[in-house]
Amino acid sequence: MFMFHVKHGVCDNMIDNDRMLMALEQAKKAYELDEIPVGCVIFRKNELVSCGFNRKESKCNSVMHAEMIAINAACEKLGRWRLDDCCLYVTLKPCMMCMGAIIESRIKKVYYGTENNVEQMYDISKISKFVNLYNLENNDCSKILSDFFKNKRKK
Amino acid sequence: MFMFHVKHGVCDNMIDNDRMLMALEQAKKAYELDEIPVGCVIFRKNELVSCGFNRKESKCNSVMHAEMIAINAACEKLGRWRLDDCCLYVTLKPCMMCMGAIIESRIKKVYYGTENNVEQMYDISKISKFVNLYNLENNDCSKILSDFFKNKRKK
Repeated sequence: MFMFHVKHGVCDNMIDNDRMLMALEQAKKAYELDEIPVGCVIFRKNELVSCGFNRKESKCNSVMHAEMIAINAACEKLGRWRLDDCCLYVTLKPCMMCMGAIIESRIKKVYYGTENNVEQMYDISKISKFVNLYNLENNDCSKILSDFFKNKRKK
Repeated sequence: MFMFHVKHGVCDNMIDNDRMLMALEQAKKAYELDEIPVGCVIFRKNELVSCGFNRKESKCNSVMHAEMIAINAACEKLGRWRLDDCCLYVTLKPCMMCMGAIIESRIKKVYYGTENNVEQMYDISKISKFVNLYNLENNDCSKILSDFFKNKRKK
């Protein structure tokens, strides 16, 4: 784990985009393992708390999504279940399980890289009472996913 | 882990109620640890695959709900993320995170002991395309919860 140094005069959006690139690095690790490439990082103020990437297939475990791994690791590292001072960055908009985990852990800000084409089963109007969602519209986050599925179809 | 022997001539509902009593035994373990008393068991045909109880406070971890622990353990035991041949029994209707994990792991039947008073953030009409939910209306599953909160208020 390393400290992420905030440069003076850099706008929030640039910081958020840098952090999304770190989540994208995590997604690349999933890609290399032939997993759907989704990556996640959790920050507390300017400190990287934890990271995770999708390991569902390689771990044979349905709960091993990037966000679940990162949230679990953040709780272990900070020694508490309440992560209300943390922000989560994930390359793909969270599924219902991960959105539930975000709300259970009281994370208030979630930045995602691209929309999820799968229809979600959560009620977004209820979600938004608990967590603010920001779409950073990062083209690389969507491209890594489309590349992955393109290659899958070829095989 | 032990095998649950199905008696000949016993109707499904009695089997389901017996399994709910096993989930209730798990909930009692949570109660003893001063955790919100929720317990869960997962069955594959007549075999008890895994069990779990809420350990959120004692593990300082927001994802340590009864169902998450049981699903994680079932995947580890069976060596696969797809639990489509399993049924889940839980003393309280699942929250959004756990409902998401149930759907991610392709569990098709969920039996719960009592309704959840907390308003859920999932869209039940979308959920029901993936999983069948059965309310077994077990009074002991609701009583252990009301007893827990009654004692909490006294303290």
